[in-house]
Amino acid sequence: MDIDDLAKGIIAGERRALARAITLVESGRADHRAAAAELLTKLPTDRQALRIGLSGTPGVGKSTFIESFGMMLTGQGKRVAVLAVDPSSTRSGGSILGDKTRMDRLSREPKAFIRPSPSQTHLGGVARRSREAVRLCEAAGFDVVLIETVGVGQSETVVAEMSDAFVLLLAPAGGDELQGVKRGIMEIADLIVINKADGDLKSTAARTRADYAGALRLLRKRPQDPEGYPRATAVSALEEHGLDETWTALQELIGWRRENGFWDRTRAAQARYWFEQDVKQRLLAQMETPQARDDLHRLSDAVADGARDPAEAAAEFVRRLRSDQD
Amino acid sequence: MDIDDLAKGIIAGERRALARAITLVESGRADHRAAAAELLTKLPTDRQALRIGLSGTPGVGKSTFIESFGMMLTGQGKRVAVLAVDPSSTRSGGSILGDKTRMDRLSREPKAFIRPSPSQTHLGGVARRSREAVRLCEAAGFDVVLIETVGVGQSETVVAEMSDAFVLLLAPAGGDELQGVKRGIMEIADLIVINKADGDLKSTAARTRADYAGALRLLRKRPQDPEGYPRATAVSALEEHGLDETWTALQELIGWRRENGFWDRTRAAQARYWFEQDVKQRLLAQMETPQARDDLHRLSDAVADGARDPAEAAAEFVRRLRSDQD
Repeated sequence: MDIDDLAKGIIAGERRALARAITLVESGRADHRAAAAELLTKLPTDRQALRIGLSGTPGVGKSTFIESFGMMLTGQGKRVAVLAVDPSSTRSGGSILGDKTRMDRLSREPKAFIRPSPSQTHLGGVARRSREAVRLCEAAGFDVVLIETVGVGQSETVVAEMSDAFVLLLAPAGGDELQGVKRGIMEIADLIVINKADGDLKSTAARTRADYAGALRLLRKRPQDPEGYPRATAVSALEEHGLDETWTALQELIGWRRENGFWDRTRAAQARYWFEQDVKQRLLAQMETPQARDDLHRLSDAVADGARDPAEAAAEFVRRLRSDQD
Repeated sequence: MDIDDLAKGIIAGERRALARAITLVESGRADHRAAAAELLTKLPTDRQALRIGLSGTPGVGKSTFIESFGMMLTGQGKRVAVLAVDPSSTRSGGSILGDKTRMDRLSREPKAFIRPSPSQTHLGGVARRSREAVRLCEAAGFDVVLIETVGVGQSETVVAEMSDAFVLLLAPAGGDELQGVKRGIMEIADLIVINKADGDLKSTAARTRADYAGALRLLRKRPQDPEGYPRATAVSALEEHGLDETWTALQELIGWRRENGFWDRTRAAQARYWFEQDVKQRLLAQMETPQARDDLHRLSDAVADGARDPAEAAAEFVRRLRSDQD
């Protein structure tokens, strides 16, 4: 594979080149990693997409929302990429967004690019790969990158750390279920979107929206937000109602942040964060060479037998590691 | 300080030697670390205390319980050490158990040894220090080591990983508040003790005990437990009621585990766990030398400016680290 050709293809916005490049950054093979690193240095850094993180538990109609929202944006002439981050895919074996037929129209739309999450992933690596895939989409000239995650555990934090704005998608529900959303998630959400505001659920959705709007007002206003944010909206992805208001709210928020310097500051802080995460991951990866695994195994056995002290055995492991690296 | 003398003093059960040794393992100074490591290798490994982890949020009467429980044990001729693990002390500035006057009788009891948590600590180091302090107490011939923690965040897990049995202390409360105890904590608790079963709260305490006993029955029986465990008891630390039943329950549980090999297997697994934690901490400590901090700072700035890619800068950092170590 010629890296220069691949870079040119991406910059020209070729979908096949983009798909191949994402496969490259997702690979764990050492030669692929080296090629991916080289590729990233050959891409322009001045193309910036709007990165929107999107979280929602199964059943809230996330695929329908992404399809309708994405179709609206491509209808406005925008190029839209959809990526999935699923740190849990190691366990579940499946990948979210795997079933492209759920987004039938968007997957056939030339201005859109949909990429399922890799089916088997090393947990620490998920974040890096997703982040690099976002960069590839930006370099390929996409205007909007939607980064989808299923609403479990740490994945929202991971996605929020690579997004310019974070959208939490919820289903209409009774006021009591408001408790179900963890405070931490409420605090990272820039926009809470109540889906399924249609048919029998229309009035419930309106009430749920009002409940969340009230709850959001109780949270302290954040310095990076203009008046009235974070905000709650109600939409029907099915009937395509309210999507434009949601988009307008996002644009208003992002426009404000750009003007006030928060966009640049956030991206800089995120880059620092990922740099530090990468350093930690590389340092811990020293435990994963065959030689290191052997040493760990042997020392761990001695520690379990009581023959060695844990701290003293750990010191020996690190000493051996260094002498092996010399 | 002569390490041989210190080791002899500890083995002879001298309280001053023990206190000095704990100060040594708590120190972050490199020469103290080296001395502490040497000291640990000079101590016998065949003395085993019963290590009891104890968690409870403020207000449940933890100090009163420790005092009454500890006095009961010393009354039986046992030597009792009380240590505190408080990973949050960095933030709060204060140390739990700091106010020894709350345990007036126990602190004056010759068979007891009370050690507050160090007031300022590096988070990753809290666990190692506490674990080494436990080992020092065992080497000094204590029969029971109570490891106290305040019921917040990760500290219960840390303490459970260095205990033979874990006690959760709770106050009497309505059935609804049962929800307040996180499932994860319920799952590591071997004994749930409802305190303040006295005066007006006596019947509430009995009901709370029954509620928790019911909830514990719903959890799947664990292979390491005999029939009827985990168990819930009700005590009055103030009036010294129910403490003996709590002690009997602990002894029954531990006796069963010893006979069935779970004691040895758990201690071996804990040693392996701490060995691995120590290795990780040492690998990450490579980021903390003055040279590494300089490099991190400089590269992080370049990453924030967009001049460098996070992954590529991280790779350079690790390369430089290795060449510096050569």
